Amino acid sequence: MSRQMVRPGGRSARVQAAVHAAVRELASEVGRDALTVPLIAQRAGVTPSTIYRRWGDLQELLSDVAVERLRPDTAPRDHGGLSSDLTVWAEQFLDEMASPTGRAYIRDALLGDPDGSNAGQCSAYAAEQINVILSRAAERGEDTPDVETVIDAVVAPLMYRILFRPDGLDTSYASRLVTGVLEPTIR
Amino acid sequence: MSRQMVRPGGRSARVQAAVHAAVRELASEVGRDALTVPLIAQRAGVTPSTIYRRWGDLQELLSDVAVERLRPDTAPRDHGGLSSDLTVWAEQFLDEMASPTGRAYIRDALLGDPDGSNAGQCSAYAAEQINVILSRAAERGEDTPDVETVIDAVVAPLMYRILFRPDGLDTSYASRLVTGVLEPTIR
Repeated sequence: MSRQMVRPGGRSARVQAAVHAAVRELASEVGRDALTVPLIAQRAGVTPSTIYRRWGDLQELLSDVAVERLRPDTAPRDHGGLSSDLTVWAEQFLDEMASPTGRAYIRDALLGDPDGSNAGQCSAYAAEQINVILSRAAERGEDTPDVETVIDAVVAPLMYRILFRPDGLDTSYASRLVTGVLEPTIR
Repeated sequence: MSRQMVRPGGRSARVQAAVHAAVRELASEVGRDALTVPLIAQRAGVTPSTIYRRWGDLQELLSDVAVERLRPDTAPRDHGGLSSDLTVWAEQFLDEMASPTGRAYIRDALLGDPDGSNAGQCSAYAAEQINVILSRAAERGEDTPDVETVIDAVVAPLMYRILFRPDGLDTSYASRLVTGVLEPTIR
């Protein structure tokens, strides 16, 4: 089979792109709660049964779209040191996830996700970003905690409070968590 | 108004108890995914519109039932020391929340909860339990972290991993988190 026959932009990928785009457009036009499978199908130019066959139901489709939206666009910026890299990343993570849009995406990602794979993907995105920051710091010769420790000490409290205990969440809280994991002895 | 006129067991409370009981019974008989408002109404002996008027939709009703089910029945046991009290509590919290039933309740509590009050109530339950443990330790003269620190260092990682990153979750992980918050200098 020649290279021309390989179709990374084949029908399946085109359907997914059209349906995801339809969800994003309609969500901003009519609001998230007014979305229905027939409405999305019409906008995407597919039949409702195409959507049901592929995603099962609206909840699972919204979960997939949410995970796609939560995927980081770029690697974390290099500010020249672990402390500033991780602090800036954590503050930005909080900003994005605690926004009304971010909360709606987290909620969607968790909901239509019977096997937990979408929630796992969200966590993998955060772990990858942290891994980039820690690897860069290690190359500079800095002492670094491991990825799972940063997840427990920074990502988990941020996400827990966004979901369950949002009072008083601000960027200074995010930066205190980073300080805590980098200098555990002075907590 | 005489005391006899106060009706803690009035119609509103009776409707709530009957509807909650109907949800619990039907969930175990037909499964959580087969629940519908008409089915619940019939079992509870109320009209569907009574349920819609009071709860808005099925999701919000399930969220209320979930929070009720997540309410701890008893105060945490006294094992004679902060470390053992907190370790036993954290292991039990993980056991309950990471079970299929616990996960379903957490998910329900988060979902039908537009204003976040049910998720906040779940977190308040954990905070109250931890507060009992820490107050008892302080009375014994033990050094104690504060409640919010324990939430960040123990509850948040457990809940984050249950929801987003469940691989390798076990009781030894819970007890390591407790060790970490009680002896931060040796992490």
